[in-house]
Amino acid sequence: MTRCFELALKGAGQVSPNPLVGCVIVKNGKIVAEGYHKKYGEYHAERNAINSAVKKGINLKGAELYVNLEPCAHFGKTPPCSDLIIEHKFSKVVIGVKDPYHEVAGKGISRMKKAGIKVITGVLDEEAEELNKFFFKFVSTGLPYITIKAAQTIDGKIADDKYRSKWISSTESRRTVHKLRSVYDAVLVGANTVKYDNPKLNVRDVKGRNPYRIIIDKDLTLKHGYNVYKYADGKTIIITSLNADISKIKLLQKKNIIVLPCKIRNSKIDLADALKKLAAHNITSIMIEGGAFVYNEFVKARLVDEMLIFIAPDIMGSGIMAFSDKKGFKDFSSVNYYTSGRDILVNLRK
Amino acid sequence: MTRCFELALKGAGQVSPNPLVGCVIVKNGKIVAEGYHKKYGEYHAERNAINSAVKKGINLKGAELYVNLEPCAHFGKTPPCSDLIIEHKFSKVVIGVKDPYHEVAGKGISRMKKAGIKVITGVLDEEAEELNKFFFKFVSTGLPYITIKAAQTIDGKIADDKYRSKWISSTESRRTVHKLRSVYDAVLVGANTVKYDNPKLNVRDVKGRNPYRIIIDKDLTLKHGYNVYKYADGKTIIITSLNADISKIKLLQKKNIIVLPCKIRNSKIDLADALKKLAAHNITSIMIEGGAFVYNEFVKARLVDEMLIFIAPDIMGSGIMAFSDKKGFKDFSSVNYYTSGRDILVNLRK
Repeated sequence: MTRCFELALKGAGQVSPNPLVGCVIVKNGKIVAEGYHKKYGEYHAERNAINSAVKKGINLKGAELYVNLEPCAHFGKTPPCSDLIIEHKFSKVVIGVKDPYHEVAGKGISRMKKAGIKVITGVLDEEAEELNKFFFKFVSTGLPYITIKAAQTIDGKIADDKYRSKWISSTESRRTVHKLRSVYDAVLVGANTVKYDNPKLNVRDVKGRNPYRIIIDKDLTLKHGYNVYKYADGKTIIITSLNADISKIKLLQKKNIIVLPCKIRNSKIDLADALKKLAAHNITSIMIEGGAFVYNEFVKARLVDEMLIFIAPDIMGSGIMAFSDKKGFKDFSSVNYYTSGRDILVNLRK
Repeated sequence: MTRCFELALKGAGQVSPNPLVGCVIVKNGKIVAEGYHKKYGEYHAERNAINSAVKKGINLKGAELYVNLEPCAHFGKTPPCSDLIIEHKFSKVVIGVKDPYHEVAGKGISRMKKAGIKVITGVLDEEAEELNKFFFKFVSTGLPYITIKAAQTIDGKIADDKYRSKWISSTESRRTVHKLRSVYDAVLVGANTVKYDNPKLNVRDVKGRNPYRIIIDKDLTLKHGYNVYKYADGKTIIITSLNADISKIKLLQKKNIIVLPCKIRNSKIDLADALKKLAAHNITSIMIEGGAFVYNEFVKARLVDEMLIFIAPDIMGSGIMAFSDKKGFKDFSSVNYYTSGRDILVNLRK
């Protein structure tokens, strides 16, 4: 099962909105074939493993199949994996965790059991669910998994009085952020962060694909010269108000930028509405990178699943505080710490 | 040498202003006797180890002596240990680190060498110096070793708007603080901390002696009903101004409280002057426990050797910030992190 996790992770950043899946085939106590889901729209892990075994001329009758997520039972982009497993007469299937997706949700398991295959479920199930935390959240709630990432000093500042925030965190921490960007579907910032930092929001220093870039710009006040507008890859999304100027929206769309007009609540963007609209674009996970206003609006709205707070061992003195909402923080009962160069990384989970 | 450190630590909190010293005697490759400095004014580690060996009827001629600090060469409360070592005809002496105290400072070593004893110095010398960091600072500068201890939330707050600071940190962190109080000569707080928290500043939950309690009360405005005034042990010290009301000073002295009138600088207590006066009372180490004003005055004055900042994984929202002086923090280049229950402990050193 641990090998399944390793294989599954090879698809990180490539398979969304599908889950990460790895598969191992065992015959006579030995691993004879492996496979994983490589890219959205392509073959599932089970099919890749089975194809690999067949190519080697292995007869799979009586073999065992290990997979971290329940094999599918529906026709999606590819035919159902549970049928393929039955067809090849496997004797046993060992599953990490059941698929929460309503089209599967136990149907794969019961189909294989009916065909006389011994099915074992719940092997390292917590780890299997953790591996696909984005997918589980997305499928069960229809909303993307939300992680706040912040880099602050000991005195809680993310920038000085002049909104300068460069190099608060260590090289190692920034590297970690780039690694995270390559696995989250999207990163999100507010208009002020674009204005003061002009971030590229791409993946640097590590290998990996660029995420979608989401910018909240309620009144479309941002000029188009900033870095985030320079991509022609169709992966920049602007969250704006339903009352936004249509001519401005059209100008953005001409630049291959996605514009999502959203509801307004207390004269601010209704974030729950924005997340629903982002989910409709198959965004299953978002890392929120600032600034303070955006952090606190998400915390207050109780829309955050996880916090990653890098704390640098310095004092800024006066400046911009990262967090100010006390109540929303009570949601996080699980705490873990990691060192990251000179910084500490605080990981808060529900 | 590691065994010497272990023995030395048994004297923690008892030997100040003397150093922590442990001693091991080896004969024919085997440890035959051990000793440590137990209490200020009593025998040194070397004499205790030698006495223990003599009691067992062991002839020390040709034996080896291990000790974490250079044996003394002067008559203090007890006669010089280097003479005793020579007298017993040891063949070899292995020393952690040279004694920085001007009455010793190499004299013990040269005396033994002249007597034909093989002397090896600098074995685990960094660890040996770290073990006696209070003593090294005190002897080489004439000032106590200063550690700031603070417990804050992620947003840098040590108390809420109403100065309430109870239970910011975890049980484990509070236990660590009590352990620290039992090894520092003194703890220090400002008048506002006494007013709002009314702390006992004693050692609870762990075994150990109570430290001196130092309160900065420039104008002697504190009423005498607070907990820190209730001890009759002569270990409460009030730092006040040279212009303080004499009748008030006399009232405090009647309660067996030590009053140290200090110079004023920019209408605040001159902390360097206060530390000199505390050093004259043989206070070699002080843990500063708050509040924010006191922390920042010490940091600004560049008088701090070490920081112990407990960060609890919570947000206070509005409240009192622990630290605000950016410049003073640049002094600390070494950073270490430890987990402490739900909290993280940040340790900053120069």
